[in-house]
Amino acid sequence: MHTDTRTPISQIGKFGLIERISGAFTHKESATLQGVGADGAAMLYQEPVTVSAQALFLEGVHFDLSYTPLQHLGYKVVVRALGQLMAMNAQPRHLLITAGLSKRFFVEDVDRLFGGVEAACNEYQVEVAGLDVESSYTGLTISVTAVGEAESAALTIRRGGQPTDLLCITGNLGAAYMGLQLLEREKALFNSAPKTRPQLQGKEYILQRHLRPTLRKELFTILQRESLIPTSMCFLVHGLAQGVLAMANASGCGAKIYVEKIPIASKTFEMAQELNFDALVCALNGGDDYEFLIGMPLAVYETVAKELPVDIIGHLCDASQGSLLVTPEGNSLPLSAPGWGE
Amino acid sequence: MHTDTRTPISQIGKFGLIERISGAFTHKESATLQGVGADGAAMLYQEPVTVSAQALFLEGVHFDLSYTPLQHLGYKVVVRALGQLMAMNAQPRHLLITAGLSKRFFVEDVDRLFGGVEAACNEYQVEVAGLDVESSYTGLTISVTAVGEAESAALTIRRGGQPTDLLCITGNLGAAYMGLQLLEREKALFNSAPKTRPQLQGKEYILQRHLRPTLRKELFTILQRESLIPTSMCFLVHGLAQGVLAMANASGCGAKIYVEKIPIASKTFEMAQELNFDALVCALNGGDDYEFLIGMPLAVYETVAKELPVDIIGHLCDASQGSLLVTPEGNSLPLSAPGWGE
Repeated sequence: MHTDTRTPISQIGKFGLIERISGAFTHKESATLQGVGADGAAMLYQEPVTVSAQALFLEGVHFDLSYTPLQHLGYKVVVRALGQLMAMNAQPRHLLITAGLSKRFFVEDVDRLFGGVEAACNEYQVEVAGLDVESSYTGLTISVTAVGEAESAALTIRRGGQPTDLLCITGNLGAAYMGLQLLEREKALFNSAPKTRPQLQGKEYILQRHLRPTLRKELFTILQRESLIPTSMCFLVHGLAQGVLAMANASGCGAKIYVEKIPIASKTFEMAQELNFDALVCALNGGDDYEFLIGMPLAVYETVAKELPVDIIGHLCDASQGSLLVTPEGNSLPLSAPGWGE
Repeated sequence: MHTDTRTPISQIGKFGLIERISGAFTHKESATLQGVGADGAAMLYQEPVTVSAQALFLEGVHFDLSYTPLQHLGYKVVVRALGQLMAMNAQPRHLLITAGLSKRFFVEDVDRLFGGVEAACNEYQVEVAGLDVESSYTGLTISVTAVGEAESAALTIRRGGQPTDLLCITGNLGAAYMGLQLLEREKALFNSAPKTRPQLQGKEYILQRHLRPTLRKELFTILQRESLIPTSMCFLVHGLAQGVLAMANASGCGAKIYVEKIPIASKTFEMAQELNFDALVCALNGGDDYEFLIGMPLAVYETVAKELPVDIIGHLCDASQGSLLVTPEGNSLPLSAPGWGE
């Protein structure tokens, strides 16, 4: 790897890097309804649209095996890929999964990992259609691709947002990040005093949100029942701020998010207080929420408010207004999302 | 990872492990024409069939960056995934690619890696429809999924072989493995005496076969022109022996392969002699050939012999005869393929 210019990746950030290398991959085929830069790809070879999404999990970055049960991990990787597909208002149909296994893995460990995969596949009614294992010299590596379908009329693509759309959120935010911080605290305590027993009682909710998140599939049942089609959606993996910015930028809009509307569970507040975190920052930038950010037309406000299991946290607006976080006092701050190495 | 029983993975091998964990993923949906255990998945939601295949490349296992140019690596990972799809007689349409990057990577390195991806996409006319980067604490990790389509009448699935089918091979075997061994020898020499200059003159063919393999796409043009549909195919990644066994076993057949028919390039023989390898073993078990093993009905023998750019190396047979390698003297040896950690 010799080169004249050497630019640290941190200088342009993860999303800057993706944008840079995406330049070469402009979509020439009219079949591509959505390509690089969103939750997944949507290709209209003919009806229904074929959708696909990929996720890569690397040990030490995306999970820590010292406190992550392999069964939960297998479940979570599937949920991650399915969530990305469902954020296109699409029906997942099958999965491809490959695991890179280091020498410290035994056959029974692999059984547990794939036991979690199986549990998730059963719950979300998808099939594993491709499965491979490789040996790895480093950590555990898991690559998952979800493939599914959608009718083009129902397909939701990231760039579909309109300047007056309502922004809605399923569930609540920041809980998974607090679960992770709790596990990290207990790990540090254990490492400094191995006889310490982990203090996890009463923290099941935030732990489950980090270790074995589930998808709000009821949302899609209700959308279908009410004949509602989101204008844009984002599966929240890198925090609310990144999701809102991604949706607004892709749609050529700005956005306004109201602090007091952002749903945060009481268990998340409690943990944030105990660990000296700002719960709002956890919700905005913590990540791994596995909730859906949804753009809905203003015209269906009443149905959204009455029927959908979501909170309305703000709206898209004209791009000239920028993407802002509005405090209860009415002050506006620019939304920002962390880049590489978050 | 605590457990009562601990079975080393080497005890059951890579393919034994895949078989074990595949048990849970039986295909309930009639949409699945081919699932776990072959080159890729084929799902008939409606015509055309959606096909997909995934490959995971891990540093130190699948490539060594001390002698692998990043541009070639980017090209190779794409070719690997496309080859798996083409081994279903399918048309690749788009790719999803995710790279896990460690801290020693600079932006320009990523440019080079994706420059190779772009070159391959242009050559094989596929689109990158999904692209992501993650940070990695260990080595470079690349996950690629190819998605495409096929008419169900033309789709070739692994289990389609019949007991009298001809077994054909594109190109020649063992060359990529010799390229790898040469690079490993030069690396070892360099490490022991850093002033040594690598001796690679005249070895361009085997080096290219390892570092930047190409796909025999002309095969598919001719198949189409002659209205020939293979009964079964396998993209050769783990050596000829594993490919033949995989095809025969999936099809409920045995196989006979004739040693003197196996195509090996003169450059491969030369290198094998120099490095003290048996060229036949390299062809059978070396791996990374990126050639196609093709089953064709006996009835089209004449067209195959006259029109297809392949060598006929043997045939499938009744399962009771087993899978055998036949020597020029007429002796038969059971075919065997290495398992985990090959």
